[in-house]
Amino acid sequence: MDERDTKTLEKIRALAFQALAEVRAGKNPHLSIPVRALSNVSFDERERVIRLGDNKQQRAFFHFKQAKLFMQTFLIAEKCKKLIEAGATTSIRDIYYDAKHTIAGSRENTFDDQAESDPVIEDLEVTIDALREELHLRAENRGAMVGPMTIVDTGDTIDLRRMGSGGWSVPSIVEENRISFTKHEAKFVLFVEKGAVWSRLNEDKFWAAHQCILIHGGGMAARGTRRLLRRMHEELNLPVYVITDNDPWGFYIYSVIKQGSINLAYESMRMAVPQARFLGVSSFDPERFDFPGSVAIKVEDEDERRAEQLLKYDWFQDKRWQAEIKQMLKTKNKYEIEALSSKGIRYITQQYIPQKLEQKIWLD
Amino acid sequence: MDERDTKTLEKIRALAFQALAEVRAGKNPHLSIPVRALSNVSFDERERVIRLGDNKQQRAFFHFKQAKLFMQTFLIAEKCKKLIEAGATTSIRDIYYDAKHTIAGSRENTFDDQAESDPVIEDLEVTIDALREELHLRAENRGAMVGPMTIVDTGDTIDLRRMGSGGWSVPSIVEENRISFTKHEAKFVLFVEKGAVWSRLNEDKFWAAHQCILIHGGGMAARGTRRLLRRMHEELNLPVYVITDNDPWGFYIYSVIKQGSINLAYESMRMAVPQARFLGVSSFDPERFDFPGSVAIKVEDEDERRAEQLLKYDWFQDKRWQAEIKQMLKTKNKYEIEALSSKGIRYITQQYIPQKLEQKIWLD
Repeated sequence: MDERDTKTLEKIRALAFQALAEVRAGKNPHLSIPVRALSNVSFDERERVIRLGDNKQQRAFFHFKQAKLFMQTFLIAEKCKKLIEAGATTSIRDIYYDAKHTIAGSRENTFDDQAESDPVIEDLEVTIDALREELHLRAENRGAMVGPMTIVDTGDTIDLRRMGSGGWSVPSIVEENRISFTKHEAKFVLFVEKGAVWSRLNEDKFWAAHQCILIHGGGMAARGTRRLLRRMHEELNLPVYVITDNDPWGFYIYSVIKQGSINLAYESMRMAVPQARFLGVSSFDPERFDFPGSVAIKVEDEDERRAEQLLKYDWFQDKRWQAEIKQMLKTKNKYEIEALSSKGIRYITQQYIPQKLEQKIWLD
Repeated sequence: MDERDTKTLEKIRALAFQALAEVRAGKNPHLSIPVRALSNVSFDERERVIRLGDNKQQRAFFHFKQAKLFMQTFLIAEKCKKLIEAGATTSIRDIYYDAKHTIAGSRENTFDDQAESDPVIEDLEVTIDALREELHLRAENRGAMVGPMTIVDTGDTIDLRRMGSGGWSVPSIVEENRISFTKHEAKFVLFVEKGAVWSRLNEDKFWAAHQCILIHGGGMAARGTRRLLRRMHEELNLPVYVITDNDPWGFYIYSVIKQGSINLAYESMRMAVPQARFLGVSSFDPERFDFPGSVAIKVEDEDERRAEQLLKYDWFQDKRWQAEIKQMLKTKNKYEIEALSSKGIRYITQQYIPQKLEQKIWLD
């Protein structure tokens, strides 16, 4: 067991010992859990990330409404402890089944639904300040990666320069004790929202010509992908560029990579890349790159609502971002990355990205 | 350009020359396209695959309703021809944008929506008898693979025994001219529906202990995954086992791998694995493996409707399959693969699959 795991185990044990001490002192054992709600979330202007505040809620054992949650939290903590001790990882769905049972002599289940165990996992994460990856819990595997770098993944050395058309499938847990970076010649990291665009760039060997790590998320960047972006930025000093569709969802994907999300604000300090740059598709690109009119897609009511919301977020207050979002609302048009194919399928590889990088046409 | 590409190009050219000949003969140029509808689909009892019949529909140039489709088909054919000549592949979304333009002197677009170009691609595939992969068109990348085998992916040699926790991301196009199998010690192929289950088996190195190729589809097997299963079965003589959830959707995923789907019946001869075996989760497993009652999920009305439908399909007429589906309807319970975690997270690796393989507890 490595230092990291030992530390996480220590935190779980401390939680249990604290409750035990309360029992021994004849007190009502309780947990003190940071509140995960918008009311306890703020934008840290200096660090440029979304942060969780200091508000805490109590969860006591002798309490009609809190007793079940109290016990569920310890049940999950116990399962995580066993996982770490066994050197195994598992999915949040598996741990739900692992922890689920009918309590002896009753018809009461420990959990009735995964919708009950998932928030308990999040509570545990924030209470002991450990990412779920440190609790050995996996989320989805999603996304793939190639580029001029060699990595070691759980003991196997993998040369990301020789991964063919498929690439290395990004696992959910990419902490230092599982994934390490070795030799590399990368100058930056390029994240693209869509697998199809990633395939285009990989087929054209964009990453070799421009010496970059090429990674996609299959939509919203999964936790493994976000954590990798953060680690490559931090440990290898690589700038991170993001390419998404030109729509509010694309802007949101970028913003989650950059400063984290409201729902999982407590992870921002470990997952966010506040220096990430938005390389496109920008609302001003149709003019700048002369898109044919036929590739525009009308924004829908839902897009407008989301765009209005984005305009109000602290982290979109930058003048250029305000202009970016307002331009979309003004033209009432949105654009997919694939719209660039109307100018030739290799336009994105040969013209669009190189020109944007060279002329520094990005937002941050 | 290799033999395969040359052949596909030849087919596209033949289509064009035929229309040209009609024009020169003063006839109305037309396309003769196999009908892709339930009415033209049947189950081939001997080959055990879903097949497209011989009914064809005409698509003429001088015809009020057919002219646009006629032109769209040739537009897509031209784009595919250019892709093949350029040695490039692209996604069906990109080709939509690539082919989309406003016709000069009009306000008419060649395509208004991808929902228009996708069926045209399918028409072209079936008309010239070429898989879309042969037309250089990509679908989604989804799924990952590891196991005791070395492959060559577009020139890169990849050892699937040393792919860490992530695995090789399965690309969309896996035809012989892009992916080839070299040295292997595999005895069978195990397909699992879910990425989380794949990660469990990979972490436990199930594939090393049992000498198998381990592959998942992230849900319904994507085209690349299905084609790989078929190729490994055919070229390497490996039996294919499938593990899905115990619900009508899981049974359906299995049946698509095994005999193809109604919608894309014309692909069955190239994608289906009629000898594929269903290794679980079976409706009789809860009794056989003593599942705790708490892991059962009530079937919903939608499940019942789907199960009733499956009961009627020709390819589910086997007595054991009828019993399998009826048992689900009788108990009104369904089970996820992850339900096995209630018996310990490594139960699936150490007990469930080995026992099923040893005692031949499968359906085919």
